[in-house]
Amino acid sequence: MDRFETELDALKQRLMVMASCAETAVRRALQALWERDDGLALQVKESDRVIDRLEIEIDDLGIQQLAKAPLAGDLRLVTVATKIAHDLERVGDEAAKIARRAADLSREPAIPIQLDVPAMASLALDMLETALAAFRHCDPALARRVLPRDKEVDLFNTQVHRLLAQFMAEHPDTIKRCLHWMVVSRSLERIADHATNIAEDVVYLCEAQNIRHTGAKLVPAIESPSR
Amino acid sequence: MDRFETELDALKQRLMVMASCAETAVRRALQALWERDDGLALQVKESDRVIDRLEIEIDDLGIQQLAKAPLAGDLRLVTVATKIAHDLERVGDEAAKIARRAADLSREPAIPIQLDVPAMASLALDMLETALAAFRHCDPALARRVLPRDKEVDLFNTQVHRLLAQFMAEHPDTIKRCLHWMVVSRSLERIADHATNIAEDVVYLCEAQNIRHTGAKLVPAIESPSR
Repeated sequence: MDRFETELDALKQRLMVMASCAETAVRRALQALWERDDGLALQVKESDRVIDRLEIEIDDLGIQQLAKAPLAGDLRLVTVATKIAHDLERVGDEAAKIARRAADLSREPAIPIQLDVPAMASLALDMLETALAAFRHCDPALARRVLPRDKEVDLFNTQVHRLLAQFMAEHPDTIKRCLHWMVVSRSLERIADHATNIAEDVVYLCEAQNIRHTGAKLVPAIESPSR
Repeated sequence: MDRFETELDALKQRLMVMASCAETAVRRALQALWERDDGLALQVKESDRVIDRLEIEIDDLGIQQLAKAPLAGDLRLVTVATKIAHDLERVGDEAAKIARRAADLSREPAIPIQLDVPAMASLALDMLETALAAFRHCDPALARRVLPRDKEVDLFNTQVHRLLAQFMAEHPDTIKRCLHWMVVSRSLERIADHATNIAEDVVYLCEAQNIRHTGAKLVPAIESPSR
């Protein structure tokens, strides 16, 4: 077996390990749900970190292998383009979801509650525009500016959900409308996620560097069972 | 400019068109939301179909270009492996989300409502297991069996959400618990989505064929603005 084949085999093996981890995590999460078992729920959280690390490892292996291929730069563009297209397709789905809820909400009276959805929407849209501008101009510095803002949107979403849950408990007649707003808020949060993915892909495209889960990279590597 | 470069340029151009469409869709959806404008909401739905078609087109261009590269089969494995890893990472996130809600729910009394969550969970888990088995054994026929079941899970999710929304309206004291169950149901639906993505990637890996959005492929092609 030549070296490239050995490396491909290593990639496939790691992916198998990751697949088992993910399957086990789902099974344990469901068991925790049915058996009301807190300890098991905690184990799932732990294994999620292992899964995150495996993704980085697999991504890195993939990147190393693609880098050695003939026409490496061009291939990077091709693979990144299809990834970005996938993210944009999901952005379209989320926009359609928001539009559906907008139509539902337009037929109901407004709810008397101050929500940060407009600020959240501006932020998410701005992240998307910035990520796409970074792609257009191949500007990794611009792309990097998108990344830290994902957490801000997450915070907005958590806060909006909390306020809505509280409000609907106090005013059960608004439940339907509050649920629509929850969907809108979550869709905005997902648009921000996709913008973040695109920004990460632009950095990889321009600098051939993988920056997903950079936070996790600061933690020492965990040995996985198959090693 | 040689032919490969021209093709790469075409790929990039199509992606730019797609990027504009997705940005516009988000902007219009938000405008529909703020201005309570049903007509605009409908336009977003239309543009979502254009976006879906563009994704297929870009995917196909990418696949054609990768197919011409030296070591095409190996490259396919590398790119598919990183995609599957990304889906598995999201599966891990969803499992963690279910586990968190399981822990919350275990501290509250059960809600007296018959939900199809166990059946839905079995189906989603089975889809994941089947997709991963198809990858392990490079069995595209097995992978194809996963695809039609995604819709079943979507139906379960819609039904569970409807029942929960109704129940919480009648019993506002259960709102918090009902919201936890909504999150669990949506996570299961997303696990099924990721299983479907993986199954589609396995078909592509084994048959070098793109089967995403096959439904949309039956509709005649829409001309996009830049053509």
